[in-house]
Amino acid sequence: MNFAGDAPNGFMEDNKFRTIGILGGMGPEATLSLFAQIIKATPAKKDQDHIPVIIFNNPSIPDRTRHIVYKEESPLPYLVAGAHKLEQSGADMILIPCNTAHFYVPEMEKSVGIPILNMPRLTCDHIAQIAKLPGESLQEKRIPVGILATTGTIHTGLYQGFMDKNGLCPLLPTEEEQESLVMEAVYGKEGVKAGYHQKPANLLAEAAAILASRGAGYIIAGCTEIPLVLSKQMVEVPLVNSMEVLARKAVHVASNGLYG
Amino acid sequence: MNFAGDAPNGFMEDNKFRTIGILGGMGPEATLSLFAQIIKATPAKKDQDHIPVIIFNNPSIPDRTRHIVYKEESPLPYLVAGAHKLEQSGADMILIPCNTAHFYVPEMEKSVGIPILNMPRLTCDHIAQIAKLPGESLQEKRIPVGILATTGTIHTGLYQGFMDKNGLCPLLPTEEEQESLVMEAVYGKEGVKAGYHQKPANLLAEAAAILASRGAGYIIAGCTEIPLVLSKQMVEVPLVNSMEVLARKAVHVASNGLYG
Repeated sequence: MNFAGDAPNGFMEDNKFRTIGILGGMGPEATLSLFAQIIKATPAKKDQDHIPVIIFNNPSIPDRTRHIVYKEESPLPYLVAGAHKLEQSGADMILIPCNTAHFYVPEMEKSVGIPILNMPRLTCDHIAQIAKLPGESLQEKRIPVGILATTGTIHTGLYQGFMDKNGLCPLLPTEEEQESLVMEAVYGKEGVKAGYHQKPANLLAEAAAILASRGAGYIIAGCTEIPLVLSKQMVEVPLVNSMEVLARKAVHVASNGLYG
Repeated sequence: MNFAGDAPNGFMEDNKFRTIGILGGMGPEATLSLFAQIIKATPAKKDQDHIPVIIFNNPSIPDRTRHIVYKEESPLPYLVAGAHKLEQSGADMILIPCNTAHFYVPEMEKSVGIPILNMPRLTCDHIAQIAKLPGESLQEKRIPVGILATTGTIHTGLYQGFMDKNGLCPLLPTEEEQESLVMEAVYGKEGVKAGYHQKPANLLAEAAAILASRGAGYIIAGCTEIPLVLSKQMVEVPLVNSMEVLARKAVHVASNGLYG
């Protein structure tokens, strides 16, 4: 990750921290949750110990999945415009609390002058790091990692693309399991997006148990809605919340390693 | 409240809503809570039904109480700079999730070109509205309203100043009650700011009960930390959460009356 110069760009000149920029609104609840995770990851005793954060919560950005799957309006121009606004406002880095939107990150990076923290990449790097034994070469290992995510995220291969070089290999639900368990839990009539809790938690726990029984050493919660109902205690192998990984990394970078 | 022109300034030109700007960081938890209340007050069925929000969470703004009471560094230049940044970024209005910071609002309004929604004023207006019977003139009534707030907020008279014209009159804890119940609940060793819950809730419920026994018809939770532990069910008269009033008003204005 490259920062332009040593001094934080920060929106207040005298700030000792770098400023975290959040390109949000996809959806607002995930944006709220990322902001909450950033605060939680900061061991502050008073206001002034906290990291400055700028949030552009723009819920009018066209649906990412509808563009990828059905070729409807592309969100890319909106994402680029939002990133430029964050840059102009003094953000030193960009976080995007939406897994599917990461499909557009390589294109965004061509015109955005500050680093975009890539949530799927950071999540895979994090798993590789905790899975690695001292002295071990990761390239030689093939650790199966289960992915719980929307069909859109899975089809774009966002997580799978960062696995091989890290010595990980993706383990996906079957198409039938993906529909009847994962998608039903997120989008179903009694799913998370409809405000339900217990039923989607049970469906996701079942999907996680199936992936663990097939050998998954870790399971990625690769959709911001999943950790809202599925807790780590409900899964027998480590459940990795990608937005939590993103928040912790951002706090670490913004505080120059002081936190995390 | 005056908006420049009919069209929303919004940070996305085609947005049907006005953009809410939050001047936050005082502290980050209150900022997070205001953002949460805005989302909760929006009856959205999909991302695109939500209101655009820009948040400048700047925790390095000097402490308001320490300036007012001890004449330390003034937060005013930081508040004005933050408000200008929000204006430049496309916000159509400014919300400040900190009661004490409202002491600086009249001074800020001299140089800020978009409306600042005044939380104490909106709270008093709201109580007057719900307390008014059809055909009643409020000026003739003198409804006692209890104020639970930090000593800093109470000393600056932020709430009291909007009461008289609304037919309300302030009812404050005695100095001793203010110290041993309210301030202890917020700042005490086992208070809200130290992460405790049950003890501060009991202290605040006791203070509320005392004010109600002296005739308070309503009680204002005039410190963003108070509603984190004191629920409406714990108070025998209506407890008015000033940040909730602010969030609802902002959603109403930003949606041009569509919501709320």
